[in-house]
Amino acid sequence: MATFAGVPSTGTGGVQALVDRLRGGDVRALSRAVSLVENNSREAAAVLSACFPYTGNALRIGLTGAPGSGKSTLVDKLARLYRAEKETVGIVAVDPTSPYTGGAILGDRIRMQGHDGDPGLYIRSMATRGFLGGLASATADVASVLEASGKSRLLIETVGVGQDEVDIVRLADVTVVVLVPGLGDDVQSIKAGILEIADIFVVNKSDRDGADRVEREIRTMQSLGAHREGWVPPVIRTIANTGEGVAALVAAIDRCVTWLRQDNELEERRVRAWNQRLLEMIRQRLTLELVHRRLGGESLQGRARAVADRREDPYRLVERLTGELLQPETAAAGMQE
Amino acid sequence: MATFAGVPSTGTGGVQALVDRLRGGDVRALSRAVSLVENNSREAAAVLSACFPYTGNALRIGLTGAPGSGKSTLVDKLARLYRAEKETVGIVAVDPTSPYTGGAILGDRIRMQGHDGDPGLYIRSMATRGFLGGLASATADVASVLEASGKSRLLIETVGVGQDEVDIVRLADVTVVVLVPGLGDDVQSIKAGILEIADIFVVNKSDRDGADRVEREIRTMQSLGAHREGWVPPVIRTIANTGEGVAALVAAIDRCVTWLRQDNELEERRVRAWNQRLLEMIRQRLTLELVHRRLGGESLQGRARAVADRREDPYRLVERLTGELLQPETAAAGMQE
Repeated sequence: MATFAGVPSTGTGGVQALVDRLRGGDVRALSRAVSLVENNSREAAAVLSACFPYTGNALRIGLTGAPGSGKSTLVDKLARLYRAEKETVGIVAVDPTSPYTGGAILGDRIRMQGHDGDPGLYIRSMATRGFLGGLASATADVASVLEASGKSRLLIETVGVGQDEVDIVRLADVTVVVLVPGLGDDVQSIKAGILEIADIFVVNKSDRDGADRVEREIRTMQSLGAHREGWVPPVIRTIANTGEGVAALVAAIDRCVTWLRQDNELEERRVRAWNQRLLEMIRQRLTLELVHRRLGGESLQGRARAVADRREDPYRLVERLTGELLQPETAAAGMQE
Repeated sequence: MATFAGVPSTGTGGVQALVDRLRGGDVRALSRAVSLVENNSREAAAVLSACFPYTGNALRIGLTGAPGSGKSTLVDKLARLYRAEKETVGIVAVDPTSPYTGGAILGDRIRMQGHDGDPGLYIRSMATRGFLGGLASATADVASVLEASGKSRLLIETVGVGQDEVDIVRLADVTVVVLVPGLGDDVQSIKAGILEIADIFVVNKSDRDGADRVEREIRTMQSLGAHREGWVPPVIRTIANTGEGVAALVAAIDRCVTWLRQDNELEERRVRAWNQRLLEMIRQRLTLELVHRRLGGESLQGRARAVADRREDPYRLVERLTGELLQPETAAAGMQE
């Protein structure tokens, strides 16, 4: 049987047993299930399907900010506070920033050190490569596995500069945008569109000079942008290193959730998120099915060469190939084994 | 006829006329063609197909770096230097960073001010939303239109933190990674994987404290990472504001291209890039065709609600839907007009 990135394959019967074990608190089973999902193995859909009945209740909090904004420390402090409140916490970190290769896994170990043996906390860094179906969907899927293991708070942490990262937090229930003073004029990357996704702004490292200015800029943006009814994203000042302001952040998240539950907005967000995820899942499945099985990777490589050599017009080629792909009778031969 | 984002539709006959005009130096025609492509209008494929014969010769240079690294200024100075060498330059900026909405277009105007009336330079900022087929492919397509208008140097500028941005520069011939001293320990986001994409490192704002340290970190990474045969990415120090070091960067790019042409590596990179672009184009077409026409967006919305309400397992749903979608006889009814 095929193995993916070193994760041994598990039979379908094995999948249910694996999910039963992770439900029972087996951390190794949880890690294995997450790997199966992350590596998009054969069993990924079965794992997610078995996890699905145990999802839908946890709160998904997306936290995004520029590199250097202190997100990881903030997430760590937030997790501690939730643990003190007897919540269980799953962290998905989509930011394997590291000066050296292999940093993601090493980073997890370092981050876990302060939480030795706490079964109520699980941290997972995501690789950011090779997600056919979209990194955002893959992140949401990993969060679902953590939720199935019983976690009540899912903290999804991303570097918030690229579109991918924005897409990731759009799948969360509540989005926290972390800014920091003193990185210079254009460093904050307060983008057009950030107002749209931020439910709560955090000014971290707020003991630094310039915290007032950052807050003022946020307020200016808010006064220019469209208003959402009933919720003006608050600006919370924190010093993640000391934990200052983290309780205020938790309170702001609670208030936001209360607001979201009014008029069913939480439900509507989840419907929109599932719409996006379904679309991604369908795209991923179609791509795998049609392009990889019917067309064949090697064949596409040959066609890419013809295009690079100017022997073939790529735009006409794609018209022809997709036309062929949608005719299963004539093109399905490659699928039969 | 349908219009997209305010861009009026053009008949297929009109497309060839439009491309003829942009080939003749008509800047308005160029802007219009880029908009048609960027907005993924009906005529996008026809425009690209008409442009295709005039592409393949320009050098595509991807520049990526964290917000605040001074990329835009560097790209501006690079463009001036190339113009002084009688090269023509197209800039595609995928970083509409702006404190206020509408920043991208305004930003273009500001950036163009120093180049008033220079027909050999064209700057275009890309929106970063709503690219079904991938932002990277859309960027490469826009670059192709600029090339068809006769530009010999294409500078593709991105914020290099998200995966999207890395994907964009992977479609370029030469990749320049811009770093800057003094943004703090973890700000540089020197990721695992950056060695893989950087052909040239630039330490910009190199008159600041810490330039030595940044260079040392790059060297350490290089000593730990895998070596590519025949090319050790050089570290070029620049001060983009004054233009210092930009000539050295141009020389480094030239050396890199010379290296790339040996052993056909430039060709191989272009084949890999086309492979990726074809895959994206096929995915985009299939998604449009199958999901939007056959399945219908509204219907997907209803299914998303069923999933959010836990009435339906999304993973089984996707299996069923993709199965149906691949049976045109039974599902094609919605396509017939």
